[in-house]
Amino acid sequence: MRSFLRRAYVGIGAAFSIALAGAVFAQSGGSANRKADTDEQRIADLVLASRILVNEGVLDSFGHVTVRSASDPNVYFMPRAMPPGLVTAADIVKLTLDSVPVDPNAPRTNGERFIHGEIYKARPDVQAVVHSHVQSVIPFSVTPSHPLRPLLHMAAFLPAQVSVFDDRTFAKDHPDAVGKMQINTAPLGAALARMLGKDPVILIRGHGDAVVGSSLQWAVYRAIYTDRNAQAQLAAAQLGADTIFVNDDEMRMHPVEVFDVQRPWDNFVARLPK
Amino acid sequence: MRSFLRRAYVGIGAAFSIALAGAVFAQSGGSANRKADTDEQRIADLVLASRILVNEGVLDSFGHVTVRSASDPNVYFMPRAMPPGLVTAADIVKLTLDSVPVDPNAPRTNGERFIHGEIYKARPDVQAVVHSHVQSVIPFSVTPSHPLRPLLHMAAFLPAQVSVFDDRTFAKDHPDAVGKMQINTAPLGAALARMLGKDPVILIRGHGDAVVGSSLQWAVYRAIYTDRNAQAQLAAAQLGADTIFVNDDEMRMHPVEVFDVQRPWDNFVARLPK
Amino acid sequence: MRSFLRRAYVGIGAAFSIALAGAVFAQSGGSANRKADTDEQRIADLVLASRILVNEGVLDSFGHVTVRSASDPNVYFMPRAMPPGLVTAADIVKLTLDSVPVDPNAPRTNGERFIHGEIYKARPDVQAVVHSHVQSVIPFSVTPSHPLRPLLHMAAFLPAQVSVFDDRTFAKDHPDAVGKMQINTAPLGAALARMLGKDPVILIRGHGDAVVGSSLQWAVYRAIYTDRNAQAQLAAAQLGADTIFVNDDEMRMHPVEVFDVQRPWDNFVARLPK
Amino acid sequence: MRSFLRRAYVGIGAAFSIALAGAVFAQSGGSANRKADTDEQRIADLVLASRILVNEGVLDSFGHVTVRSASDPNVYFMPRAMPPGLVTAADIVKLTLDSVPVDPNAPRTNGERFIHGEIYKARPDVQAVVHSHVQSVIPFSVTPSHPLRPLLHMAAFLPAQVSVFDDRTFAKDHPDAVGKMQINTAPLGAALARMLGKDPVILIRGHGDAVVGSSLQWAVYRAIYTDRNAQAQLAAAQLGADTIFVNDDEMRMHPVEVFDVQRPWDNFVARLPK
Repeated sequence: MRSFLRRAYVGIGAAFSIALAGAVFAQSGGSANRKADTDEQRIADLVLASRILVNEGVLDSFGHVTVRSASDPNVYFMPRAMPPGLVTAADIVKLTLDSVPVDPNAPRTNGERFIHGEIYKARPDVQAVVHSHVQSVIPFSVTPSHPLRPLLHMAAFLPAQVSVFDDRTFAKDHPDAVGKMQINTAPLGAALARMLGKDPVILIRGHGDAVVGSSLQWAVYRAIYTDRNAQAQLAAAQLGADTIFVNDDEMRMHPVEVFDVQRPWDNFVARLPK
Repeated sequence: MRSFLRRAYVGIGAAFSIALAGAVFAQSGGSANRKADTDEQRIADLVLASRILVNEGVLDSFGHVTVRSASDPNVYFMPRAMPPGLVTAADIVKLTLDSVPVDPNAPRTNGERFIHGEIYKARPDVQAVVHSHVQSVIPFSVTPSHPLRPLLHMAAFLPAQVSVFDDRTFAKDHPDAVGKMQINTAPLGAALARMLGKDPVILIRGHGDAVVGSSLQWAVYRAIYTDRNAQAQLAAAQLGADTIFVNDDEMRMHPVEVFDVQRPWDNFVARLPK
Repeated sequence: MRSFLRRAYVGIGAAFSIALAGAVFAQSGGSANRKADTDEQRIADLVLASRILVNEGVLDSFGHVTVRSASDPNVYFMPRAMPPGLVTAADIVKLTLDSVPVDPNAPRTNGERFIHGEIYKARPDVQAVVHSHVQSVIPFSVTPSHPLRPLLHMAAFLPAQVSVFDDRTFAKDHPDAVGKMQINTAPLGAALARMLGKDPVILIRGHGDAVVGSSLQWAVYRAIYTDRNAQAQLAAAQLGADTIFVNDDEMRMHPVEVFDVQRPWDNFVARLPK
Repeated sequence: MRSFLRRAYVGIGAAFSIALAGAVFAQSGGSANRKADTDEQRIADLVLASRILVNEGVLDSFGHVTVRSASDPNVYFMPRAMPPGLVTAADIVKLTLDSVPVDPNAPRTNGERFIHGEIYKARPDVQAVVHSHVQSVIPFSVTPSHPLRPLLHMAAFLPAQVSVFDDRTFAKDHPDAVGKMQINTAPLGAALARMLGKDPVILIRGHGDAVVGSSLQWAVYRAIYTDRNAQAQLAAAQLGADTIFVNDDEMRMHPVEVFDVQRPWDNFVARLPK
């Protein structure tokens, strides 16, 4: 998977040269205009990822995306505590995997940064994490009789049944976590990461989801198609009880080898308000 | 709660200095650019609040937001009768808590101003009131088998079951109120305020809601997340009957201490059309 | 009702002087800037009405609004056959109540003009008619177990149960109408007008609705709030079977005396793309 | 049907001369400004069709529209593999009906081009094909108890029950197709075309639809109204089990003779972002 990751990643800079009207479209697939995978490039993409997820309706005033450093796998980049739609490169903070800022004078980051740090610790394959409050997954996080399941071919990356992390279970043995509904300590983040296991997505009860990827492009793509799968599954549930879900063969074949994630990314970038 | 209110409130002016592209973002949390809590400032925020609630889909051609005076708790500010999306500072009228204009030559305000005045009388802690017709709460106002309940962690401010004010109950003993479906007298407003009690939100049957806050920022935030909670609860109800709601521990812990309300406010302001 | 109509109507021109940012808002209610009720003014409003209904999601590529002449109750104005969002004053055609163009060289108008002409014949109180394909009413037009009923206080103008015109009933005795699903002859239009009776709204099975008003402002307002009531009723039906609808007292009290229709109209105009 | 096709087609160029504000609207129906049906014109329309389907919510980052050549029925035009909203005339590739590029140096086209090529082979009447992932049809593609059926009069072109192609059926005898959920070989495309038969629309399980037309205008129109019919059918299913669908008489009478498809096309073009 790492080699695919590299292929998918090394070209993101092309997105900057897109101009919708009357301009030559920078061909994805062309190696000439692919950018090197540096921290600087990842930070530029992190700004785009934040704005894309707002623009596609996955994030609103809350939620956050992060990316692991390209040069040092033991640190990751996160915006300071602020609305994701307003993030610029100047707002990015470098954190250790314990979610402590490398620069003690760095601005405050979100209290739920432990979602990111603990997943990076547990999952060396993960290069990017999205935490969102996207509305469509909420019903599946509070209705145990209806887990989120893959139904769309573009969401065949989902596991047969998406896990739901409920802090009430954790809080049973941790009185300080009772009633918080926030993943804002390292033990809570670690518990979430354990339940995530090798999956790409986990729901958080009454709260949202966490989505991981082998690149920012894949994490963003998956966050968006998790949303669309949830919308389609709700509609299918309204029709009848005989929904056909993606089966084991199909899950095994998907998704990373199927298409170039640069294609939707280019489109998401082009759709950003100018 | 008052001290938190002050902290949340004193900084709203920062919103004016936001510019989305290429500009330095005014850090929330920084005390330097926080504004004093004056009537002038509250009126400026009231204009923003009106436009925000239209932009976020809570208000349309109707509905109104008001704010209590910072200098005199016995008067409040309300736009004249007009679409909330068009309100400017020149449209703001000062009213006593009996909802009588201080200036007898002031333009006409909405007939339902008594919702605001009577709540301010009954609730000294309330500094701002929103009355909206937001679509998402309507089903919960007309389907007694399904009260609105908190399900989203960002809406854990809701009481375990949101009350529904039905003017038919009131009209039983007040023949002049029969069939009006409007809260346009002081006794109707007072009855609504009594049913609201210490809650932050009340629904009005077939009509909309009233939402209060310890600042304009909190009232706006709550009006928006009441909407999102209603949307999520409807979707969950479509999936199954085993919805997990926010429990007592969680309600006790939320919401005011959890986050800086200036963050979503800054975002709502930044999202306004230029 | 006619005197109210006049009051509501004579001021529409004010809408033209609205400018959203930084300008003085032309006060509705001020008599100084009210315009005379002339054919020229009605045609200007008809253009606005067409664009408003597109902008508010009631019309798309199809559907049409018309207005009766102010000077001659035996003719009405209708745009030529074209998408309603593109209508200008130059596109307006004058038709007799038999839906024949007064000018034999006039451009072709929509085949369903008989909806309008036959309603104007049967209802002297009606000054404007909207025919739309709005999505939200369709389910109520094809599901006999669930008629559209008033539930929103802003839609208390709806009758206790909105009639559904089904051309299959008519076609039983009119072989030429079999299978058309179009109201494109005078007898079909007359049959629809008979079923409408004194109501303000009628649904057309699998097709849309027809909405009438004592002015363009009222017809537009009602078309928009019929849409919102349908949306709310669908959501309420998804929650449970115990929906509380508007009752007889409330229907009797509504809607025309309750508010100044110029207020939502001004807002709809202000919301039009510049 | 071919003669109607010609009538509908020969005027598309008019769309280019539309200007929304203050300009003279180019009358559809006027023969003077109709353009000749050349390959150049079809390619220009193909670019518009791609952008229209994105703008109307039918396509997102994926999906594709194609058109048969006007001069050689054995080739068709398809954009290279890229987001449809970004397509320009420079991105169009000419393919044989075996879905092989005529120019061996042409850029790569989408792996699912066989949907198009195999339909063109099987259906000489088809001049244009849309393949979309539109959300609204997905539930009907995975819920066998609820096939998509015509309910809207504007969608009376749909067959009484829209077929669903499921690659699992095909894959039973083709081990290389197991788990792919993609129509990316000629045999899969041919199997889809066989199931489509003479219909205008077919669904693909968990994936989307394929929609054909006797012109780009008709294929685009049908793709959009298939979406709207699906939305209305879902809503009707939520209300009750007694939905009235379009009957045989109505299907026989519809749709092509009923209206000038240039009208919605002009509107779709006018709605494109400038």
